[in-house]
Amino acid sequence: MANNSNISRHLPFGEKRDSRFYGQHILTVAQFDKTDLATIFEVAQEMRAMVQRVGSFDLLKGKVLTNLFYEPSTRTSSSFAAAMQRLGGSVIQINNVQFSSVSKGESLPDTIRTLEAYSDAIVLRHPERGSADTAARYARKPIINAGDGPGEHPTQALLDTFTIREELGQLDGLTVTLVGDLKHGRTVHSLVQLLALHNVRLNYVSPESLRLPAALQAQLAAAGVEQRQQPDLAAVLPETDVLYVTRVQKERFTDMAEYERIQGSYVINAALLRSARERMIVMHPLPRVGEIDMEVDNDPRAAYFRQMEYGMFVRMALLALVLGKA
Amino acid sequence: MANNSNISRHLPFGEKRDSRFYGQHILTVAQFDKTDLATIFEVAQEMRAMVQRVGSFDLLKGKVLTNLFYEPSTRTSSSFAAAMQRLGGSVIQINNVQFSSVSKGESLPDTIRTLEAYSDAIVLRHPERGSADTAARYARKPIINAGDGPGEHPTQALLDTFTIREELGQLDGLTVTLVGDLKHGRTVHSLVQLLALHNVRLNYVSPESLRLPAALQAQLAAAGVEQRQQPDLAAVLPETDVLYVTRVQKERFTDMAEYERIQGSYVINAALLRSARERMIVMHPLPRVGEIDMEVDNDPRAAYFRQMEYGMFVRMALLALVLGKA
Amino acid sequence: MANNSNISRHLPFGEKRDSRFYGQHILTVAQFDKTDLATIFEVAQEMRAMVQRVGSFDLLKGKVLTNLFYEPSTRTSSSFAAAMQRLGGSVIQINNVQFSSVSKGESLPDTIRTLEAYSDAIVLRHPERGSADTAARYARKPIINAGDGPGEHPTQALLDTFTIREELGQLDGLTVTLVGDLKHGRTVHSLVQLLALHNVRLNYVSPESLRLPAALQAQLAAAGVEQRQQPDLAAVLPETDVLYVTRVQKERFTDMAEYERIQGSYVINAALLRSARERMIVMHPLPRVGEIDMEVDNDPRAAYFRQMEYGMFVRMALLALVLGKA
Repeated sequence: MANNSNISRHLPFGEKRDSRFYGQHILTVAQFDKTDLATIFEVAQEMRAMVQRVGSFDLLKGKVLTNLFYEPSTRTSSSFAAAMQRLGGSVIQINNVQFSSVSKGESLPDTIRTLEAYSDAIVLRHPERGSADTAARYARKPIINAGDGPGEHPTQALLDTFTIREELGQLDGLTVTLVGDLKHGRTVHSLVQLLALHNVRLNYVSPESLRLPAALQAQLAAAGVEQRQQPDLAAVLPETDVLYVTRVQKERFTDMAEYERIQGSYVINAALLRSARERMIVMHPLPRVGEIDMEVDNDPRAAYFRQMEYGMFVRMALLALVLGKA
Repeated sequence: MANNSNISRHLPFGEKRDSRFYGQHILTVAQFDKTDLATIFEVAQEMRAMVQRVGSFDLLKGKVLTNLFYEPSTRTSSSFAAAMQRLGGSVIQINNVQFSSVSKGESLPDTIRTLEAYSDAIVLRHPERGSADTAARYARKPIINAGDGPGEHPTQALLDTFTIREELGQLDGLTVTLVGDLKHGRTVHSLVQLLALHNVRLNYVSPESLRLPAALQAQLAAAGVEQRQQPDLAAVLPETDVLYVTRVQKERFTDMAEYERIQGSYVINAALLRSARERMIVMHPLPRVGEIDMEVDNDPRAAYFRQMEYGMFVRMALLALVLGKA
Repeated sequence: MANNSNISRHLPFGEKRDSRFYGQHILTVAQFDKTDLATIFEVAQEMRAMVQRVGSFDLLKGKVLTNLFYEPSTRTSSSFAAAMQRLGGSVIQINNVQFSSVSKGESLPDTIRTLEAYSDAIVLRHPERGSADTAARYARKPIINAGDGPGEHPTQALLDTFTIREELGQLDGLTVTLVGDLKHGRTVHSLVQLLALHNVRLNYVSPESLRLPAALQAQLAAAGVEQRQQPDLAAVLPETDVLYVTRVQKERFTDMAEYERIQGSYVINAALLRSARERMIVMHPLPRVGEIDMEVDNDPRAAYFRQMEYGMFVRMALLALVLGKA
């Protein structure tokens, strides 16, 4: 893992353990190499096994996590809260920061330095790109980036990658087809960077106006990733191992007829999946708004609800790792 | 208990215990028979004894409850949170769902399937009738209905019934006088159905326009319950064992003079209670807004604050039962 | 400690311990004498040592604290939540009471009597002066005043005093310079009353219109405290042991030019601190909005972030004391 060189390694409460993760921030997918992923996923697998066997355990008993959400994200904050609580730790939940005392004109660094006085780690969701880096620059305790506006959402990319691994056994050799709005989604942008660490082929199915940014495509090409624009979802489905569906947001369009046409053309339903492999998975970061028909939910290839559970295991792993208890 | 036939019994985290309650939803008072009530109340009594002796204990240690509130209800959500925490479990509190990510157009089934990935049970408060049933249809984890709009509020009815039993020893043979708005309150509608399982007499004191719905009266009559409309509260008070007072909401009236007259005529005060039995109780689901004068609070017959505590014991019992730990 | 004579000592859950603090409310700094402060600070020091050694411990395991905030104060509520959780207890967090069911016209006494049915102590933040006293008058469980409008904020004053003691060893003999808005801040008003229990000298640096209220100055004079208005911050800095900076709020001014002039004249920066002692501290209740330049943050004399941590230790001490576990 690229060392977060700007932070001093903090030794909370007398612990002396060290590792590549202990005391580190989780800010971007770019900080991880393949060895890091292997470590995270190995711990996440242990978490999965332990949750399924006993539900929870006291690995982080006595530790306090602050969930600092400058914009609402119930899904992500609940996932981290459950992860911390299943490890025996406790959570300070801070929502709607815009209405709270920490926002009486207070700077993010001051808020972070206040809250780290109370807590052992801070999960930060913030609408501005770069805010997690700013927080990390001032923090003595680990900062976990839970989305910084159009920037990064590294734990989502980790859970997506973990899902593929758990569902299909390995990543190398897979064909991943990404569908929908590939231009704006930080989820997709973070995910493809982790996929690029593996030997995968990527198909992009999106309208002209919502393509994966050229700079990101160039970066992936430089990393040797095989990428193809695919005009037709149905045509590419039979070769697809992972179908990653994202939401096409109405507000990205000025022409509503164009929106309706595009949105309708990407709906995943049972009929479409008849041409897909038997061993493949359909993923979605959720929430979905019509991109995947509910009739698909009972198809064993529908992995999007299991994806939520994998997310909790990955976040348990990250919390245990940065707090030196994995 | 009428089996929630639409759910598969879920065996979380390797447990194998079974019972009439384990893994079941709590959706409606109609699912309970007298044996179920006896079980719930027996466990609630144990909870009461344990809380009074030691405050809390680790029966549900490691379990995670999600409190999913689509509309605010501090009283109910705090009661469930305290219940879970006094059993050693932890709580994910989700308020103001309308502002949160789970509501970005997401359907209730999707929200439920996401949150059950993190939690062992879900308490749901939702403004729409039938929402708890919908949630239960998709959930693998137990759903506890904490109020679905004008529909049901079964845990309130259980705590009301438990309060009567704990305060007066038994329900059979009692005269229960219900005062106020008997038309709109789901609390009253749920309560009378549980009372109907016992040998009670019911008096209704309410304005013409706020009477108990005819269909419900017919259902109770069919169950053999003796019911009487009572024009005069003072006249019926001497024979009353349980005086159950509800709020008459201003917004139900178009004629404000009518509202003032009615609201004033149902105020319970010390003078009125002079004609009541020595051994009877005054109940109210709270919040009250003038229906019971504060001077009554110190009367030992005023049971409405104790009612809150009984509520916590009943919810502890329900959580322990559906999670297979009672 | 002046006994809260209006409350009956409550013996929760079978405990029989007694002391000057057990079961008592924390309402005002006026209730403490020097012996009380010594007790609180001794326990707070133990908390500090224990947190630094092991992070948390199970002193209040099974106890439930309700954080009842009628107005937002993330800083204070997070501090109490962390304090309770580091003692092994759990927290029911109630924010935005104005939108919640407890506020459907419900009186504060009713809300308190409802919530104490679930909890072992209640922390109350309320916009109206005297609300904590009202709550305490009806409560059987300890009420901790976390700010009642323009009234008191006793735990802030305790943590400020504890900070001085921990940073400088003792309070007697110190010169404390208070800067900014000394008229409106309940923080300052509470603090000077605790300082008055010690042999300190007070300097006041504030615009004419924002001076410490005359009645409070008279009270301090009667207690034998040496007080001086100081027109020039720079002049008084060399003799200052504790520089306590507060925010000058724009909304207190009608003349914006006057505001800019005053606000600018009180900014603490590195240049100014060059004339200060080597062994002195700069404090601020936070949030700051420009009163202290960020360049000061790395100066070892900048104590305002450590102040946050001392706050958690003091609140841990208070919770342990009123719950009879210190």
